[in-house]
Amino acid sequence: MCPQESRGGGGLSRRGLFTAAGAGGIGLAAGAAGAFAAGRERSSPVNDVVPLYGAHQAGITTEAQDHMHTAAFDLTASTRQSVISLLRDWTEAAEAMTAGRDVGATGASGGAYDAPPEDTGEAQDLHAAHLTITFGFGRTLFEKDGEDRYGVRSRLPAALIDLPLFSGDALEPNRTGGDLMVQACADDPQVAVHAVRNLSRIAFGRARVRWSQLGFGRTASTSTGQVTPRNLFGFKDGTANIMAQDRDLLDKHVWVGGSPAAEAWLDGGTYAVMRRIRMHVETWDRTTLREQELVVGRTKRKGAPLSGGDEFTAPDFSLPGRNGPLIDAGSHLALAHPDHNGGVHMLRRGYNYADGTDDLGRFDAGQFFVAYLVDPRSHYVPMQSAMAKNDLMAEYLRHTGSGLFAVPPGIQAGEYIGQPLFS
Amino acid sequence: MCPQESRGGGGLSRRGLFTAAGAGGIGLAAGAAGAFAAGRERSSPVNDVVPLYGAHQAGITTEAQDHMHTAAFDLTASTRQSVISLLRDWTEAAEAMTAGRDVGATGASGGAYDAPPEDTGEAQDLHAAHLTITFGFGRTLFEKDGEDRYGVRSRLPAALIDLPLFSGDALEPNRTGGDLMVQACADDPQVAVHAVRNLSRIAFGRARVRWSQLGFGRTASTSTGQVTPRNLFGFKDGTANIMAQDRDLLDKHVWVGGSPAAEAWLDGGTYAVMRRIRMHVETWDRTTLREQELVVGRTKRKGAPLSGGDEFTAPDFSLPGRNGPLIDAGSHLALAHPDHNGGVHMLRRGYNYADGTDDLGRFDAGQFFVAYLVDPRSHYVPMQSAMAKNDLMAEYLRHTGSGLFAVPPGIQAGEYIGQPLFS
Repeated sequence: MCPQESRGGGGLSRRGLFTAAGAGGIGLAAGAAGAFAAGRERSSPVNDVVPLYGAHQAGITTEAQDHMHTAAFDLTASTRQSVISLLRDWTEAAEAMTAGRDVGATGASGGAYDAPPEDTGEAQDLHAAHLTITFGFGRTLFEKDGEDRYGVRSRLPAALIDLPLFSGDALEPNRTGGDLMVQACADDPQVAVHAVRNLSRIAFGRARVRWSQLGFGRTASTSTGQVTPRNLFGFKDGTANIMAQDRDLLDKHVWVGGSPAAEAWLDGGTYAVMRRIRMHVETWDRTTLREQELVVGRTKRKGAPLSGGDEFTAPDFSLPGRNGPLIDAGSHLALAHPDHNGGVHMLRRGYNYADGTDDLGRFDAGQFFVAYLVDPRSHYVPMQSAMAKNDLMAEYLRHTGSGLFAVPPGIQAGEYIGQPLFS
Repeated sequence: MCPQESRGGGGLSRRGLFTAAGAGGIGLAAGAAGAFAAGRERSSPVNDVVPLYGAHQAGITTEAQDHMHTAAFDLTASTRQSVISLLRDWTEAAEAMTAGRDVGATGASGGAYDAPPEDTGEAQDLHAAHLTITFGFGRTLFEKDGEDRYGVRSRLPAALIDLPLFSGDALEPNRTGGDLMVQACADDPQVAVHAVRNLSRIAFGRARVRWSQLGFGRTASTSTGQVTPRNLFGFKDGTANIMAQDRDLLDKHVWVGGSPAAEAWLDGGTYAVMRRIRMHVETWDRTTLREQELVVGRTKRKGAPLSGGDEFTAPDFSLPGRNGPLIDAGSHLALAHPDHNGGVHMLRRGYNYADGTDDLGRFDAGQFFVAYLVDPRSHYVPMQSAMAKNDLMAEYLRHTGSGLFAVPPGIQAGEYIGQPLFS
């Protein structure tokens, strides 16, 4: 038994094949030049790599993958330099993992035999699986208990507010907030879990996980090529979502731009609103189809507005029925519609979750709501305030977790995530 | 708006297409003949239906799917007849869902507008996804607090024991036990979650969920055509598993047969051992590659025994190294090996899980261990007793949930699951 033995071969291993090729050829030379370069030349036999670099971070307009693992972190770093080093290390690891490679120069099993492996190893045989890793900064990164912890308070964006407590909120502290946020999305949950776990491991001594959440079955499409998925109420969700193809809407409603100097570091970025919304599925399942469709404002089968047409027909909120308009003013559709929210749109990118069962035998299941938007003050707080009070659906929901994060712009090779904030 | 509107069309919906076809043609006539027959003629455009009927239940030797949702139930039914009716209803629903259909004659959105839909609806657009639903009976179905609850105490199999408390067990009551067990496995977690949820809903008033668990990334193969997967310690898992092709081993180590008369209802069935094993991944990730391989007894990259060869080479427990045998006697490989367990094998079919984070920021992640075997007294208790005491891996594990279930044989069309027990 020697380390070499476990590096070569791997005939059944998919990722192992690239590693072996890299170790024997170009990759080895590149690897010697440093962790960043290790095996950069490897290519996947399937085209499932989403590039890390670009004007915006990946994982926002990227065609929504089927699985998500998200974590928020509390910084324990005592210096600004330590935070920067963490972001550098995370960027390096994200570059490797999104390309389908192990973390570090020697990866899961090619390193020194008397040291912990650099990569935890559970993704060794798996593809890149369209992994994206999206990073965000919470308000407490800038200021906590009145303290300018890392010398960035002067750059706190005005829109990175403390979200107000909405009517009916039942937020649990250990599912809420966080200094840093990492959202990993992939075709394979093991790839997403591996990513968050390795970032958590890299953060050891500088940040620790505050909360984490696994999600499946995306609850919105982000590309016109995708079929609209269904949430755990059995209804199509995200029909009116902003799509990657809607460039004008993205520029207006998602991407931050033209900020004042102190906030210019966020130009090209966005804000992520995350809400863990438990759905009382047992209660919902006992209501009539009529009630369900009334609450949603759409038909269950086709997802068409109750005013008629098909899924993508514009709703007619004034079309009268026997008792008032066909689409109830308190329906989810009416309250969430841009017409009733000053014309605002958002890019939704949430997931279903199922976290076991409570003491009464009820599923702790629902939606991990994720929305990207240009300003939470105009694009989220008014809508959620109205919904929490008037939404017919509210009685079936319980918000148990919450986070608001400034999502910095994309980076180019050689930069680290959030670099403009610290330079 | 009328119910018909939401039944037809569905151009973007995959399952919707079959429903629409069914509603307009053969399916409608069949539906009129009763719930069981609804749309039986529908066929999926892809071949991803695993038949419900057979000599053994599906979901055991079925090529392991990537996702699992399992639940255990406490019966609240007051009569034997009520339990039978539940098993009948479950069988009917399982037949529909495993064929990729909604539950009930009218499904998710074709029923009366002033009644709750028969199906919760979140799988409407999804394929069968190789869904299997496997049912099991806990000891408490036969006897609880000394009471013969449903007139089946005389048929309690001797092997359906109360598992002993193993060294280091930290079992949580609400993750342990249960009168009935339902394991749904599928290619898509939404399909598995939908199955368990609808069975739970059907059970309303007769049984309620005691615990439920979502799993991903199967931790063993059950067919020689599958690549060995990796667990969250980053090692290949289930290399020596019994495969569907090993018919002799299955007959000897998995399927119950030749039972005494009182237990003959279980012939063709098996036992399921389920253990929720939290893995202290943070601690594991800080140990050296040497230590990890020593604990497992295999190399991390290839999964080869430390005595040499490749993944499928038989281990040589006597081959000496510098300090004792190359494969440590306390390694997981040594302790789990048939040679050290009286020649017993098991069919493992577990899954990884990731259930968020504890108050110390550590992942509540690990393995939901599932093994099918002919007799837990010979095939599980001795091995687990030895492992709990001597396994070098034990310090990285914590068993937080446990269940042992008698898994009745398969059924033919028209029968209900477990019927021989009640006839």
